[in-house]
Amino acid sequence: MKVTLLTHSPEPERAVVAAALLCYQKGSPEEAWRRAGNEKLRTRLFEELVRQGHGSTLEHPSFTFGIEGISRACSHQLVRHRLASYNQQSQRYVDVGDPDYFVKPDSLADDGGRFEEVVGATVSYYRAMIEQFAEKGKKGEQAQEDSRYIIPNAGKTNLIWTTNLRNLLHVAHVRMCSRAQWEIRQMLHECRRVMEGPFPLIAKYMVVKCHPLSMGYCDEEFRSCRFRPLREDVVPSDENCPPGPGYREEV
Amino acid sequence: MKVTLLTHSPEPERAVVAAALLCYQKGSPEEAWRRAGNEKLRTRLFEELVRQGHGSTLEHPSFTFGIEGISRACSHQLVRHRLASYNQQSQRYVDVGDPDYFVKPDSLADDGGRFEEVVGATVSYYRAMIEQFAEKGKKGEQAQEDSRYIIPNAGKTNLIWTTNLRNLLHVAHVRMCSRAQWEIRQMLHECRRVMEGPFPLIAKYMVVKCHPLSMGYCDEEFRSCRFRPLREDVVPSDENCPPGPGYREEV
Amino acid sequence: MKVTLLTHSPEPERAVVAAALLCYQKGSPEEAWRRAGNEKLRTRLFEELVRQGHGSTLEHPSFTFGIEGISRACSHQLVRHRLASYNQQSQRYVDVGDPDYFVKPDSLADDGGRFEEVVGATVSYYRAMIEQFAEKGKKGEQAQEDSRYIIPNAGKTNLIWTTNLRNLLHVAHVRMCSRAQWEIRQMLHECRRVMEGPFPLIAKYMVVKCHPLSMGYCDEEFRSCRFRPLREDVVPSDENCPPGPGYREEV
Amino acid sequence: MKVTLLTHSPEPERAVVAAALLCYQKGSPEEAWRRAGNEKLRTRLFEELVRQGHGSTLEHPSFTFGIEGISRACSHQLVRHRLASYNQQSQRYVDVGDPDYFVKPDSLADDGGRFEEVVGATVSYYRAMIEQFAEKGKKGEQAQEDSRYIIPNAGKTNLIWTTNLRNLLHVAHVRMCSRAQWEIRQMLHECRRVMEGPFPLIAKYMVVKCHPLSMGYCDEEFRSCRFRPLREDVVPSDENCPPGPGYREEV
Repeated sequence: MKVTLLTHSPEPERAVVAAALLCYQKGSPEEAWRRAGNEKLRTRLFEELVRQGHGSTLEHPSFTFGIEGISRACSHQLVRHRLASYNQQSQRYVDVGDPDYFVKPDSLADDGGRFEEVVGATVSYYRAMIEQFAEKGKKGEQAQEDSRYIIPNAGKTNLIWTTNLRNLLHVAHVRMCSRAQWEIRQMLHECRRVMEGPFPLIAKYMVVKCHPLSMGYCDEEFRSCRFRPLREDVVPSDENCPPGPGYREEV
Repeated sequence: MKVTLLTHSPEPERAVVAAALLCYQKGSPEEAWRRAGNEKLRTRLFEELVRQGHGSTLEHPSFTFGIEGISRACSHQLVRHRLASYNQQSQRYVDVGDPDYFVKPDSLADDGGRFEEVVGATVSYYRAMIEQFAEKGKKGEQAQEDSRYIIPNAGKTNLIWTTNLRNLLHVAHVRMCSRAQWEIRQMLHECRRVMEGPFPLIAKYMVVKCHPLSMGYCDEEFRSCRFRPLREDVVPSDENCPPGPGYREEV
Repeated sequence: MKVTLLTHSPEPERAVVAAALLCYQKGSPEEAWRRAGNEKLRTRLFEELVRQGHGSTLEHPSFTFGIEGISRACSHQLVRHRLASYNQQSQRYVDVGDPDYFVKPDSLADDGGRFEEVVGATVSYYRAMIEQFAEKGKKGEQAQEDSRYIIPNAGKTNLIWTTNLRNLLHVAHVRMCSRAQWEIRQMLHECRRVMEGPFPLIAKYMVVKCHPLSMGYCDEEFRSCRFRPLREDVVPSDENCPPGPGYREEV
Repeated sequence: MKVTLLTHSPEPERAVVAAALLCYQKGSPEEAWRRAGNEKLRTRLFEELVRQGHGSTLEHPSFTFGIEGISRACSHQLVRHRLASYNQQSQRYVDVGDPDYFVKPDSLADDGGRFEEVVGATVSYYRAMIEQFAEKGKKGEQAQEDSRYIIPNAGKTNLIWTTNLRNLLHVAHVRMCSRAQWEIRQMLHECRRVMEGPFPLIAKYMVVKCHPLSMGYCDEEFRSCRFRPLREDVVPSDENCPPGPGYREEV
């Protein structure tokens, strides 16, 4: 797996903070943008906005990651995060019959090489079918898109993933959890790693939901890995409290 | 303001639970649907899914509310929740020049009737402009859509709002907060009230985010109304903890 | 593959038409709902709204389909439509090592039974790994989620898919195209078939984008299957025309 | 009204084309990015992707506009486009009692100055209420957010609007139409104007939906302004044609 940051909003924290300042001032958007140029103000406000969950401001900057060599099992999980944009290597247009183009989980290491054998058999079948299609005068799209039915979940894929900051933090919160599968967790850790250099203040908040810089407790109940306290350990249980403070009380 | 439940998914909790069961069983969608017909199982799982934040399952049922007579100030806030569907009374097609068609905040009660006077002046101007357009042979759309520039934020509007359950709970969490404006808070309390009869189990979870049945603490920091504990009161602060449990540790 | 309509908004066309009527009248949402009860009016307006592309009104009703026994290759395509809700049979929680649980494309029929052989080898490997995990005292989740890396794209899956009407028509427009893969096209044809009985007026508009009841021409250019005219055949080319009618001209 | 481009993806067309190339090649995301650096290839493919409606690729680049001095009537329309991000000047935090801070439609010019008089009355009331709140010891938020109920739709506002390219073109297609209100049409023309310098290839496609570079005909039926041909003028009507080409025919 290789994760790179292909491109991104030029000044992500500034976009967040300018958007917030705009709400609270009479001045123009350009003035908000100018004020957000002040580093000290920007850093302080940026962290405040993340901590207080003012999500709308976090949507302005976006990041385009190149994701190379994850399995289709993993990509199927990633694309379920719908508030983001994806383009993925197509098994219709790209020949994927290559025995080296597979992800083998570490947990299967001790199988006497049978994974590679079975993968090899799928690749042979794929190659044979591509050839059969060619003999019938069918090339390209359908040949590949039907032959690939034999390709295992382990088959590698590449994606270009664009996400705004709000969603990036959300995906980190849920996919860095021990309940997520190892491969997508690794992917998020890699995303965090490539963010650390250029955007340490953002990487800081790319944490699992139970981390003190996110929700702060675990809501997985009996499935919890106990990395951090459970919800019931920290949230005062008082189910008789009213649904909210009265809506007229401040009048 | 009047809120009604115009229509809704026939069996909302069942749809949620069937969707969850489908994930964990080999059986068909129809079998999951059948199993979710068991009331005891359904009730237990439904609450578990809400509590554990398994949001995807909550998206299957939806609710269509009729919202009548809220101000345009309030509707402008409501439509900012983008994961829902709206249709709103049009100030292009509907004549809104009616002095009774305004929301006056209670906090302005003690103004010697000036609110009504000023609103009356805006309505007179509106009426005069509609007439002037008519004299120029312009009726209907443009006459109304330009004349309405004088209509105050207080002008009433009607909406039909369809939201799935995931978003409905989210909107309750943020708009039942004392930080939200009184009118939209009232609206959410009304939505909750019309849900209580047919769907008590859902109404139960339509609470402000700091409620023990939602996030359980307040993240508004220095702006908190102190209805419930602050984040810093409950979440153990330990910023040195790693971003998440190691992704290879279970291998 | 088996598609069923598990549940749906009780009166879909009525919800669409009530939402539209609400925009154009002073009356309450309940009055709009009542007026939309008139069948003749409802039918006429419903078709007008679909034809004129007034998409916001089409979002109010939703449909929950049970999709049984499509391949993971197909489900990966389906879940890319992000304005809808999905729950899918989990390869973490469900044992998928069953040689009968695979989709074999018709185009691979003439392979002397090799597909079944290779699939059989993958299933054997899956079974062996599950056993090895069990010997190490690891059961359930990780055993299954890692062993399934060997399972081919052809592996069957079940989903519960909830979509509003706007998105349902959109998915039909793009996935009933000959450019879509045969399996997802078949799935959409099946969805259309189960809609025909209860909702013939909706099924009528579940057509490929080049159909006269949708966009009406093909924009796939050199990739077109020529089922219907190309864009260049019908749209008058006049690139010198201004970007739009002047925005002040009606003043 | 003043529209500026505050910030944007550094190389928007390149991001689009790299995302498309990634789908069709075996190479890495970085290689796709590198190949998209070729200007000739990039320009040709970019236009092809827009023309063929391959929308997913258009989502990668985004643009952050500063919108200054539009009316709240206009902003209410803009924020209805939900696949974008907004922050708006708050009438809770910002004092909007300024008689110069209003948009007067040209069509109301001939009113003998009554617009300004009525607006003046609303501002006086606003100021008086702010003062009354202050006397009761209430300042700031509630004072402003309730007093503003009297502020007309014409009241100016500022926004920061971030949209990806797919949505930007969509909003142009529907809001540059003569059926849209003059103010939001003007806003889109201004957005187009600020794009023309840095991104002429994108501005080229910011056109009304009936333009030959978009859908190419008008679907507004009897409401059409006849700027371009009607749907019925160009699309061959053949309602007996099947819903789509057969999904098995290529097998």
